[in-house]
Amino acid sequence: MNDNLEELWCVRVTCDDQTGVVAEFTSALAREGWNILDAQQHTDQSSGRFFMRLEVHHGMSGENALAETLLPAAELVHADVKWLPMSRKPRVAILASKTTHCVVDLLERWRTGELNCEVVCVVANHEHIGVHASWYDVPFYHVPFRPSKSEGFAAIEGILDQHDVDLTVLARFMQIMPAELVGQHEGRMLNIHHSFLPSFAGAKPYHQAHEKGVKLVGATCHYVTADLDQGPILEQEVVRVSHRDGPEELRRKGRVCEREALAHGVKLHLEGRVFVHGQKTVVFP
Amino acid sequence: MNDNLEELWCVRVTCDDQTGVVAEFTSALAREGWNILDAQQHTDQSSGRFFMRLEVHHGMSGENALAETLLPAAELVHADVKWLPMSRKPRVAILASKTTHCVVDLLERWRTGELNCEVVCVVANHEHIGVHASWYDVPFYHVPFRPSKSEGFAAIEGILDQHDVDLTVLARFMQIMPAELVGQHEGRMLNIHHSFLPSFAGAKPYHQAHEKGVKLVGATCHYVTADLDQGPILEQEVVRVSHRDGPEELRRKGRVCEREALAHGVKLHLEGRVFVHGQKTVVFP
Amino acid sequence: MNDNLEELWCVRVTCDDQTGVVAEFTSALAREGWNILDAQQHTDQSSGRFFMRLEVHHGMSGENALAETLLPAAELVHADVKWLPMSRKPRVAILASKTTHCVVDLLERWRTGELNCEVVCVVANHEHIGVHASWYDVPFYHVPFRPSKSEGFAAIEGILDQHDVDLTVLARFMQIMPAELVGQHEGRMLNIHHSFLPSFAGAKPYHQAHEKGVKLVGATCHYVTADLDQGPILEQEVVRVSHRDGPEELRRKGRVCEREALAHGVKLHLEGRVFVHGQKTVVFP
Amino acid sequence: MNDNLEELWCVRVTCDDQTGVVAEFTSALAREGWNILDAQQHTDQSSGRFFMRLEVHHGMSGENALAETLLPAAELVHADVKWLPMSRKPRVAILASKTTHCVVDLLERWRTGELNCEVVCVVANHEHIGVHASWYDVPFYHVPFRPSKSEGFAAIEGILDQHDVDLTVLARFMQIMPAELVGQHEGRMLNIHHSFLPSFAGAKPYHQAHEKGVKLVGATCHYVTADLDQGPILEQEVVRVSHRDGPEELRRKGRVCEREALAHGVKLHLEGRVFVHGQKTVVFP
Repeated sequence: MNDNLEELWCVRVTCDDQTGVVAEFTSALAREGWNILDAQQHTDQSSGRFFMRLEVHHGMSGENALAETLLPAAELVHADVKWLPMSRKPRVAILASKTTHCVVDLLERWRTGELNCEVVCVVANHEHIGVHASWYDVPFYHVPFRPSKSEGFAAIEGILDQHDVDLTVLARFMQIMPAELVGQHEGRMLNIHHSFLPSFAGAKPYHQAHEKGVKLVGATCHYVTADLDQGPILEQEVVRVSHRDGPEELRRKGRVCEREALAHGVKLHLEGRVFVHGQKTVVFP
Repeated sequence: MNDNLEELWCVRVTCDDQTGVVAEFTSALAREGWNILDAQQHTDQSSGRFFMRLEVHHGMSGENALAETLLPAAELVHADVKWLPMSRKPRVAILASKTTHCVVDLLERWRTGELNCEVVCVVANHEHIGVHASWYDVPFYHVPFRPSKSEGFAAIEGILDQHDVDLTVLARFMQIMPAELVGQHEGRMLNIHHSFLPSFAGAKPYHQAHEKGVKLVGATCHYVTADLDQGPILEQEVVRVSHRDGPEELRRKGRVCEREALAHGVKLHLEGRVFVHGQKTVVFP
Repeated sequence: MNDNLEELWCVRVTCDDQTGVVAEFTSALAREGWNILDAQQHTDQSSGRFFMRLEVHHGMSGENALAETLLPAAELVHADVKWLPMSRKPRVAILASKTTHCVVDLLERWRTGELNCEVVCVVANHEHIGVHASWYDVPFYHVPFRPSKSEGFAAIEGILDQHDVDLTVLARFMQIMPAELVGQHEGRMLNIHHSFLPSFAGAKPYHQAHEKGVKLVGATCHYVTADLDQGPILEQEVVRVSHRDGPEELRRKGRVCEREALAHGVKLHLEGRVFVHGQKTVVFP
Repeated sequence: MNDNLEELWCVRVTCDDQTGVVAEFTSALAREGWNILDAQQHTDQSSGRFFMRLEVHHGMSGENALAETLLPAAELVHADVKWLPMSRKPRVAILASKTTHCVVDLLERWRTGELNCEVVCVVANHEHIGVHASWYDVPFYHVPFRPSKSEGFAAIEGILDQHDVDLTVLARFMQIMPAELVGQHEGRMLNIHHSFLPSFAGAKPYHQAHEKGVKLVGATCHYVTADLDQGPILEQEVVRVSHRDGPEELRRKGRVCEREALAHGVKLHLEGRVFVHGQKTVVFP
């Protein structure tokens, strides 16, 4: 339990849309003296599903009081409600393969306070990633995928469990996750794909983009699901390219999109701004 | 009074920030059976000022009921509250000079339903603008500024009064508005300036931009105030340029920014999404 | 033949890459007193194909002299060479269906001198497009596609022939062109597709984009080929969207991309800046 | 002298515009068997100044032969001509103060081969920058500016001389360079300013931007001159912001623009793509 009375809390609510949902929660909070610093809501018209994110604060009450305020309101409107202290730092694991730009960028943004989390480990199937983890004093695990992929994934599963990870970030991790591992981390595993999805899913997207002759390349941050490169999208970025750019130059230009889309996606998730809704996301800015 | 019970209403609230403001309004609305379809709020940290925009709906009540619901809540928290039926079409006047791209774009967006308003007149100090107004069956007034500027502005004042205008849009109108006329239309007069303000305020911004050798040019949509090109900014757009582009080419590339920033700014204002707060704006997307 | 000695000429060269191609042409031109005002070139590394665009000028010579200068150089390096006076206005036909934003934008850009061409006719299978053509004093043809599509396309073929059209622009023309007509206009027929290709080819791309939950939507200007929405891409534009945007709102936001990508693509083609090379394009800015 | 016959050379030419300049150089090169892989040129219309950048290659000749080919051509048209092997790695010094994002980004891009140079030293007036230099095995100098600024700059001058630096990059170095030091490094010293210049020159640009309420913030990479923040601009980047963003959030969002504009500017300079022309630049992509 969090006893810091100065604490800011993030409250997340989802339920079927109905008259009075916003009022139910906000008036319960007001009655008990909670101040609402930010409120965002959205109703998906086709499904009639309602989503709300609040930032609330109380000078003299803590988690117990907040729970007692929210739960009756939630019961009344059959809502799913969650609350988290905003100071809480989710435990994050970063998985990588060969390329370093996403790992380095995440670690640097974490170190400078831009990402509110605890990076608890870096895992990679290439050993040279280790030096970057060591720069930032983060435990590093080298997990080879040869000769046995299944042993590799078993090792990763063990590491994620051991570190009690809240969020796993695939920072250009180039192995296809087994469905079971994905299932265990549903809604808690983010990937960066180096194309503007749904274009160029699968392998070698920059070569595909070059072959096609597109005038913009991009990157997509999405939740990992059992369908490769098909999970709900959080964030996308693009950059202009030209006929001068071969696949290598596309890769270089695309890198900026990759690290930007991934870092932004991770930040949105960490701050509780993303709701997964079927194949899509609701993202409160 | 609006008797359409299917009506959606836009409610705008501003007051000093305090515990329970959101709850006060949302619970009053819920108590009376109003459904909140969208809610956005913001508290300016430095001034402690609170801003909220709601979209509400009631199957069996109209304006009277809404007023009776909102006013007591507003009184309690000393808030300024306004409500408008979202179907209401504000009366808009477009003022222009020589160039046509902004006028034509606004008229076309209005005709295709993108801008929810009534364009009641087009006024210009150049006669050739008239043909565009006639295309869209909008009354046109040619107001010359020679020999007398003051007579020109007197004529404009008369036209705006006569048409009971809610919003005046300066669509590349190249005359400096007299302070008095500006004062009468405070918060209800938008301008497009053809630079990325505060860079290149005043005359010939594209020449200034070319002289300076900037690598992006832009446009700024802002409320008109007595200080030339200094009013609160709603929207800005930029586009990349290069050393190949002379002032004429900058002007051509900038046109796209101008019409985009202006149309977007007008749309935001018409939908009640903009709150002016001192020299700045709060814009709910 | 063009006798205007003040004329600027656009010279386009393609051949297999080899030492001395640039020199062959530029020294031949210099020997005869032609001044080169702009030169851009590109060699496609995978195919070894060379592309060059020059802007040249001579105070005392015209087309005959230019031909005599270029042809021997072209013969020597087995190049395909073309030259066109830059003042020449290609004859353009615009084809449309229901939506007006692309037609109106092209006509307005043409009228204000941004597009260096002659718009010789507007053709549409919906009658209401006619009023826009009449605004700009352009002949309009209403070609219905019911009951018979083949009669419709026969009529279009006749109109394009009759007007001796250099470029046909499909400005949101929603009928699939027959292969034969496409073949006759190879490299001279541009389409705007309302998605960021190769994503969402085919029908209802904004619905597809909404279904997928992408965070950016776009538009693609491409040459028309027998493969639907698969021709070489000239230009692409994207705009940011969010979960708030339903298909209708995506359509509205996408419109800006459509007209921008189409107008830019048309301009690039008209100025001889585009070389089609297999499934791709080389575009000199 | 460079004896690598496989070498690619970058040739840079500037002179007054005149008929035959391109031909003079390209035909001289072709005569001697040099292949032109890329050519870009520009004539500034107002000053009549001509700029050209070539990439050339010869299977059997080296620097001596290239010089003998270029110098007579240059003499004939009174041109300034320079040539550099493209494999040459200019010697770069990075200067920093407190913030690390630009230093780390430059070092990482250098390490991954994106920036073709030798980073020979990192200099900072804050000691904690040292750890980043050590990560990349680059010599680090801590130069305090208290109590004496002049001693600090004397030390920097000594370091730059000692390392025979070709390019000095001010990577958010927050001290104003003395005119004399600037003069010694004219055209060879780049700065990143954390605003979209000419807006918000001088101190605390993000605070200025927040005060003004702009809807986009940016960064500008420019050559350092004696006039603070007034040197020729190479590159600019912007990012969208909103009323939600306080000065701290603007700083965070702006960081991405800063490192992007700086890295891109450094890359363009290193590849010989930038010509300074008075207060402006010509930049060949």
